[in-house]
Amino acid sequence: MEAGFIGLGQMGRAIAANLIRAGHRLIVWNRSPGPVKELAALGAQAAGRPADAAHGEVLMSMLPDDETLRSVLMEQGVLESAGRGLVHVNLATVSVSFARELARLHRERGLGYVAAPVFGRPEVARDAKLNIVVAGDSASVARVAPLLQAIGQRIWPVGAEPERANVVKLAGNFMIASALEAMGEAVALARAHGLDGAEFLKILTSTLFASPVYQGYGQLIGEQRYEPASFRLRLGLKDVRLALHAAEAVHVPMPLASLLRDHLLEALACGDGDRDWAAVARLPLRHAGLE
Amino acid sequence: MEAGFIGLGQMGRAIAANLIRAGHRLIVWNRSPGPVKELAALGAQAAGRPADAAHGEVLMSMLPDDETLRSVLMEQGVLESAGRGLVHVNLATVSVSFARELARLHRERGLGYVAAPVFGRPEVARDAKLNIVVAGDSASVARVAPLLQAIGQRIWPVGAEPERANVVKLAGNFMIASALEAMGEAVALARAHGLDGAEFLKILTSTLFASPVYQGYGQLIGEQRYEPASFRLRLGLKDVRLALHAAEAVHVPMPLASLLRDHLLEALACGDGDRDWAAVARLPLRHAGLE
Amino acid sequence: MEAGFIGLGQMGRAIAANLIRAGHRLIVWNRSPGPVKELAALGAQAAGRPADAAHGEVLMSMLPDDETLRSVLMEQGVLESAGRGLVHVNLATVSVSFARELARLHRERGLGYVAAPVFGRPEVARDAKLNIVVAGDSASVARVAPLLQAIGQRIWPVGAEPERANVVKLAGNFMIASALEAMGEAVALARAHGLDGAEFLKILTSTLFASPVYQGYGQLIGEQRYEPASFRLRLGLKDVRLALHAAEAVHVPMPLASLLRDHLLEALACGDGDRDWAAVARLPLRHAGLE
Amino acid sequence: MEAGFIGLGQMGRAIAANLIRAGHRLIVWNRSPGPVKELAALGAQAAGRPADAAHGEVLMSMLPDDETLRSVLMEQGVLESAGRGLVHVNLATVSVSFARELARLHRERGLGYVAAPVFGRPEVARDAKLNIVVAGDSASVARVAPLLQAIGQRIWPVGAEPERANVVKLAGNFMIASALEAMGEAVALARAHGLDGAEFLKILTSTLFASPVYQGYGQLIGEQRYEPASFRLRLGLKDVRLALHAAEAVHVPMPLASLLRDHLLEALACGDGDRDWAAVARLPLRHAGLE
Repeated sequence: MEAGFIGLGQMGRAIAANLIRAGHRLIVWNRSPGPVKELAALGAQAAGRPADAAHGEVLMSMLPDDETLRSVLMEQGVLESAGRGLVHVNLATVSVSFARELARLHRERGLGYVAAPVFGRPEVARDAKLNIVVAGDSASVARVAPLLQAIGQRIWPVGAEPERANVVKLAGNFMIASALEAMGEAVALARAHGLDGAEFLKILTSTLFASPVYQGYGQLIGEQRYEPASFRLRLGLKDVRLALHAAEAVHVPMPLASLLRDHLLEALACGDGDRDWAAVARLPLRHAGLE
Repeated sequence: MEAGFIGLGQMGRAIAANLIRAGHRLIVWNRSPGPVKELAALGAQAAGRPADAAHGEVLMSMLPDDETLRSVLMEQGVLESAGRGLVHVNLATVSVSFARELARLHRERGLGYVAAPVFGRPEVARDAKLNIVVAGDSASVARVAPLLQAIGQRIWPVGAEPERANVVKLAGNFMIASALEAMGEAVALARAHGLDGAEFLKILTSTLFASPVYQGYGQLIGEQRYEPASFRLRLGLKDVRLALHAAEAVHVPMPLASLLRDHLLEALACGDGDRDWAAVARLPLRHAGLE
Repeated sequence: MEAGFIGLGQMGRAIAANLIRAGHRLIVWNRSPGPVKELAALGAQAAGRPADAAHGEVLMSMLPDDETLRSVLMEQGVLESAGRGLVHVNLATVSVSFARELARLHRERGLGYVAAPVFGRPEVARDAKLNIVVAGDSASVARVAPLLQAIGQRIWPVGAEPERANVVKLAGNFMIASALEAMGEAVALARAHGLDGAEFLKILTSTLFASPVYQGYGQLIGEQRYEPASFRLRLGLKDVRLALHAAEAVHVPMPLASLLRDHLLEALACGDGDRDWAAVARLPLRHAGLE
Repeated sequence: MEAGFIGLGQMGRAIAANLIRAGHRLIVWNRSPGPVKELAALGAQAAGRPADAAHGEVLMSMLPDDETLRSVLMEQGVLESAGRGLVHVNLATVSVSFARELARLHRERGLGYVAAPVFGRPEVARDAKLNIVVAGDSASVARVAPLLQAIGQRIWPVGAEPERANVVKLAGNFMIASALEAMGEAVALARAHGLDGAEFLKILTSTLFASPVYQGYGQLIGEQRYEPASFRLRLGLKDVRLALHAAEAVHVPMPLASLLRDHLLEALACGDGDRDWAAVARLPLRHAGLE
């Protein structure tokens, strides 16, 4: 297929490369030129302006937050110049309220809108092993399926309202953050009783908790290795905040999410905003006077 | 080997049966006679009093809490009548302070003491697939290894001080409770946005969280099936409390454990004490007015 | 002085009446006509549109939230038609970020802006006993002082940046909510041990906590009398949320505020949104199975 | 009256001195001899052993914790040698479960037991202005009333079961700790927005929160003056823990008390255990990177 692709950060780059490898023709745009060149070397065409990426049948975007996506779509004219019938596949994590607004804005212009947030760190994206949660009208979803199959190991459809995919993504990230906090507190307890943190986590993450999240992050926490960041703590804070907003809108208290927000905020205030968000596991040690 | 076995609850029964199946000779005792008969039918010898189970080389016990174990060992004369050189293997979850006291009491009488708390629900015990965390002096641990190998899939040694094994067990149970809370809050968020709770959990527990704890408990929470209990909520509350005590003793704040304690206590106050502790996941729904 | 007054809710009505009694000439506007007639009967002039209240030297406003104030000032043309040199005195609780924006918007148009949020329930406003926290440039503050003196028992200046007054107000409301939670949990503990809630609170609020907040709200909580609302719970939730936002903007975690937000949200979900916010004290009883 | 008095710490010394000043005859005991000499200089008789203080009609005690009181009463023979009919007045804060046990132990020996925990810092004790919460059988309470009147400004009877007075005391201390946390978080918010912490607290504690607890502790927090301690943080942690235990026994979750426990524990771990417990207000500043 022919598709535009906007947003070539760590994740976007890996995904776009896999689309090219799978034989799709991409026209790509990014704020800074480096990643554009990188993709061009693989066969992508470079778009001069974001709007130039919106003339095909599909536009994919992977931008870091609501504000950036809003600016690109609205102020830089992407929505305005998009060809009728184009389907926009948003791979990024956005707020539930913005997802609802985006669905409306696309519908009003006769454009399709598919929310397709992904689970997986950059190396998972590189291996085309992402898990993709998809929501949107079934015709649009069917049309973009070949693209999604090229970048993920499995597609999880969750209905026609796009914001539902974002709810799943935000709830999932909340669950990851909960696991970080749980491991952080457990390690503090274990270390204060003379155990080695990495050995302690090894036992749990080889058995009851033998899953990608616990093993991957467990290793970072056990080794206290928080740089370079696969997912920066300040973005993690943003996602937990979005989960809290989505919950507040439907009157759901999430006290564990509140606790995570406070701890991520503290970690940010103490200088860990650009480290991996696993660094939130440092707080229990610091609060116990162990760091 | 010849071994005594005290405490034939759901877990103890399954473990003792596997020891017999592996060819060990057991003399068993239990407060109520039913389980004793059950084991006798498999070939065990019945002890008239707990002390009668303490005349061999090894005594294993699986009793529900500190108070019961203290009563059996001290008031019912087990420690007093134990043969010199006997090694006591405690398979149960006890408090860290009692573990330390037990180590001392056994040492003073020339007895060995091995803490060997197990991870796994009754069906795991039945399949002899428990994960066993072991701590104690190396000679004692070596002597009881054949017994432990007969009941578990893997033994995780964590040092010579018995209480360390209990720290690992309590920290592990804290991590399980954290997972229950995280799933409970995430499901409340998802359901309030129109998603099906079981389908939502399916996505996460098939991917990022594909591990025994998340899959097993995720199914209970998704189906809201909290009876019969594999692990009763009031025992889960006890273990979280023990984790908090062990942490307080070494000045480690565990705010997530505090949150879990409060929620388990609320669930208990609201009548779920004898349901599976996964029932703590009902609270976020109730607090959101969804139950 | 001559002044416009916009927003005649419970608080606004009481304040405006005191201004008239003190000899000031008011031109008043309100969305619904009832309160306008009430004030007209006391001698106020009725404005046909909000902008008509902005032609004198001073405009006072007491509107319930950021959105309403924004709509009145911007969409209904108040700022546009305000006479050069007018000083706008905002008596309401707004967000810190909106306070900053308001200061800029007024400055750009050559208008003065004074933040003057008030502490006190409607009956305190009626008695002209409000405590008024004031921030703004000193010339503007000096000009409106006669008006403020007519409605409050004391004026507390906190500097030239208007948002500072809002920070004090939000921090103060957070402290009130904290007191509600503390009394609620303490009463649950006392009642579960057989004490009478009202008698228990009487002891504390007559001694260590003999202050308006504890005595006023202590009486409501002791008598479990949450209607009619002096301050509706949904507005209290809004203010705690604004405090959390103001704190997040400067990287200050406020875990107690997070706890209050979650509890107020739960109370809202369970149907207490239009009761007095003291009704948040019902939760600890409900969580203990006592209600 | 003639009375024994055991425990001459800061509080006990001040109280005993007032009893002597009021004309009562005291026989006093303390672990270390300094305070005994001090009281002897005022006219008290010195007891060689604690039991020697238990021969009159009344014994008052003011000991720091359950363990010390238990040791003095049981191991050092006070209960054993107490004259039949003696009434023991316990002025200290003990656990609810120990209060119940003490009531039983005294009853079994034909002794009276009155729980009379006091509210007030040492300077309040010196001025005989304590608030005394009293519970016990009415005959015993009536007998010791003259002593209590000599040391406090008001006596608050709460029934016949002694532990009720302890519940009130623990709930009151929990409320004080809540106020410390609320002020600490509010000051962090205010300071991060450029306000002066002491000036900010001045506004609130002169108005809505004009009460002894907020004014006294507000001054310490505003000035960040945590030494010397009027009430040591490690004792405050003990009392919050006792409140949590008393609540857990009757299935009452107290999430704010849990938060306070965690923060006091963190403050202890970070070296503030012997500072005034108002030092818990340092944490919000530290967590915001402001200290």
